[in-house]
Parts: sequence; structure tokens; C-alpha cells
Amino acid sequence: MESVERRLKELGIELPDAPRPFGSYVEVVKTGNLLFLSGMLPVVDHNPKYIGRLGKEFDVEVGRDAAYTAALGAISSAKDHLGSLDRVIRVVRHGVYIATFGDFFNQPTVADGASDLFRDVFGIQNMSARMVIGVACLPLGVPIELEVIFEVET
Amino acid sequence: MESVERRLKELGIELPDAPRPFGSYVEVVKTGNLLFLSGMLPVVDHNPKYIGRLGKEFDVEVGRDAAYTAALGAISSAKDHLGSLDRVIRVVRHGVYIATFGDFFNQPTVADGASDLFRDVFGIQNMSARMVIGVACLPLGVPIELEVIFEVET
Amino acid sequence: MESVERRLKELGIELPDAPRPFGSYVEVVKTGNLLFLSGMLPVVDHNPKYIGRLGKEFDVEVGRDAAYTAALGAISSAKDHLGSLDRVIRVVRHGVYIATFGDFFNQPTVADGASDLFRDVFGIQNMSARMVIGVACLPLGVPIELEVIFEVET
Repeated sequence: MESVERRLKELGIELPDAPRPFGSYVEVVKTGNLLFLSGMLPVVDHNPKYIGRLGKEFDVEVGRDAAYTAALGAISSAKDHLGSLDRVIRVVRHGVYIATFGDFFNQPTVADGASDLFRDVFGIQNMSARMVIGVACLPLGVPIELEVIFEVET
Repeated sequence: MESVERRLKELGIELPDAPRPFGSYVEVVKTGNLLFLSGMLPVVDHNPKYIGRLGKEFDVEVGRDAAYTAALGAISSAKDHLGSLDRVIRVVRHGVYIATFGDFFNQPTVADGASDLFRDVFGIQNMSARMVIGVACLPLGVPIELEVIFEVET
Repeated sequence: MESVERRLKELGIELPDAPRPFGSYVEVVKTGNLLFLSGMLPVVDHNPKYIGRLGKEFDVEVGRDAAYTAALGAISSAKDHLGSLDRVIRVVRHGVYIATFGDFFNQPTVADGASDLFRDVFGIQNMSARMVIGVACLPLGVPIELEVIFEVET
């Protein structure tokens, strides 16, 4: 199996600091070989990178970048918890919650901003299951929130 | 334990082809004895069977059929992944996300379109936990999306 | 490890009866060392304690109490299923779905109504991961629904 850490380097990806909680919870809980993450938001230094909704303030490209940013945070959280990403086997499932206004139906393309990153980092033979949901609004007003469950070495 | 495959036959249910992804993900991931599915939509031949929302374009009966159709897709996905449904022990949890317009609060009756099918196929002694959520909109504009986690033989 | 049952008593918390289903599902499914709960609503005696949304009918304080009420139901469900809460190790993840109207972005404070209770009952060294999502509407018109996964002794 190829090293996830090496692949990250080959892709030229630098991980941001792991996100910090906005309330009475922790970012990562490990149980057995599953790592449950808290909802990952597109934040930079604990501040929202974007505030707004798809179908109103933002178009697909911004939505994709928000999904990518939240997915980077998920990877950084896993590394922070485990020490090394080489202990991650795959993303089991990710859910992409997209703050949506009106008749915007292109959520799958937005969600691929996160899914493509997971595929590139963890490998095409380890692709994840996915949920995509358009919602009324998200904490802090951000356009994207990710649910992520990793499978890891025990 | 009664055979799930035999019960499906007794119920006269013919499974459709397993749904295919609309993006960078796979439909099923197995980890340990859990099978995580991607969001199941009411699709027929990779096309939405319904486009619209409960409380506006659709009433409860259409909603129930959409939930049933998505649940059939979930069962078909499990069979496609495992080879035989006799390896499924139960649905652990299903979430029913319902695209809702205005003051429509009858989501539980809509959700039973999926839950009743799971009960009939996997048995009343193996009923699932359930979440029901009314959301702004769903991928492709469909009225229903299902989250499904199965417990399977390892 | 301190007894969860004893801590509940020290906190002066009396558990309500465990909630009952509103459809073809069960409230709790155990698989391995995980306990998946159905969506927990702020109900009292099988009736909604509140009907309305954050940002319209209700402010943050009512939202917090609704989240607290739903979280009490989750703890009661776990006890009902397991016999004793001393078999619970922690909440692995809880999701707080909040029926939201307009530009209400203070979901994290509302969600803490549930998260603070889990922290107090299961201990600060056992804090949970969390998702918070603002949605269009919830079953029966309630303002809050909780997703809860517990880790338990096998």
C-alpha cells in the first residue's frame, strides 16, 4: 500500500492546522477502527472562509473550494489525532451538507470538491460512500459542512 | 433465521439494477460488519423518478413511493456488493431526508414508505433505527434521499 | 471510572420515560459496541414539547431547552436498552438538526443544550464529536432533532 503521507507530499498539499471546536464537543472520536469527526466547516484560523449560500451568494466554483477547504480540515484532524495519515485506511463515508437557496440542484458537482480530494489523497481503490444534502443554513453562515467517518488501523 | 432472499421472492419484489454514482464516490463501503451506503435517491435507470418537494409538487403518496424506490435501490446495492442478501443481518439505521416546502410536517408517514419495506424484507424482529429530516433540497431535485447502514456477516 | 448512574444522581437528573417510535422503526439498535439511536425529538409523553423554528417562533433559550430535552430522551433510550448507563462508555457522535427560519446562525449555542448535558453526564474526558445543521423542518414541527451514536461495553 502506498503511503498516504507520501502521496500528500507528491500532490503538493500542505495541511492547515486542525480545526478547533465551537462548543462542548471534540473534533475527533475513535471507536474501534472508526474515526468519527465533528462537522467540518470551511474555516481558516477558526474563522469562516466564506459566508453565504449556493444559489444566492455563491456559485459552484466557490462551493467547490469551500468543500475542498472543509475536506482539508478533515484530513488535518485525522492526522492531528493519529499522528500519521499512514494509519488511515480510507474515508468510509462523507456527507456534504450544502446551504442552498432556491432551485439550486447542482449539489453533486459542489460535493466533488471534497470527494475529489479524498480520492486523490487516499487512492481511487479506496473511494468513499457519500451523502449530499441541501440544507437551510449552517453554523456561522458557512456554505458547506462535511460529515466524515474514517476507517483506521486499530 | 429465515432467508432474506426467499422472503424477497415471497413478497414478489424484483430488485432494480443497483444505482450508480453521480460523482467521485462509490455506492457501498464495507468496514468490519457494517455496510455504509451512499445517499440513495429515487432513481430509475440513473434518472430521477420524481423531481419536486413534499408540501408543494408532491403529496404523501408520491413521497412514500419515492422513499420505497430509494429503499429498493439500497437493497439492490447491498446485494450487488455482497452477492447475496442472506449475508445481511439488518438495517442498523436509515435516515430519510425529505425535500420539504412550507409547513409540511407529515414526514414520518412519508418515511414509512422506506421503513415498511425494510421491515417486510429483513423481518419485524430486526427493525432499524431511523432519522427523519425535512431539508431545503436534494441532488437532482428529487424529493427523497436515504442514508442506510446495514449490519452484515463478516 | 466513575459511575454514570451515580453522576446522574449527583446532578439531580431524573430521566423521563424512553421515547416511543412514530412509525415502522425501533428507537435503539446495537451492533458490536455501537448503539445507534433513532432521531431524538423534544417530546414529553409522546407529544412535542415545542412546535416552531429558531429564528421565528423561538429564541436561543427555547432552542437550548429543546436540545436538552431531546438529549435526556437519548440517555433514557440508552438506559432502557442496556439496563444500566454504567455500560455506556461515551457518546461517539451527536448531530443536532435545528429547524431554522431566515438568517439565524447561532446554531452552535443551541446545540450546546444537548452537548453540555452529554459532557456533564458522561464526563469531560469522554466528550463527543458533533455535527450541527440548520434544516427546513422536522417531524411534527419540532425545532430540534438529535442523531446519537453511543459507544458501549460489548
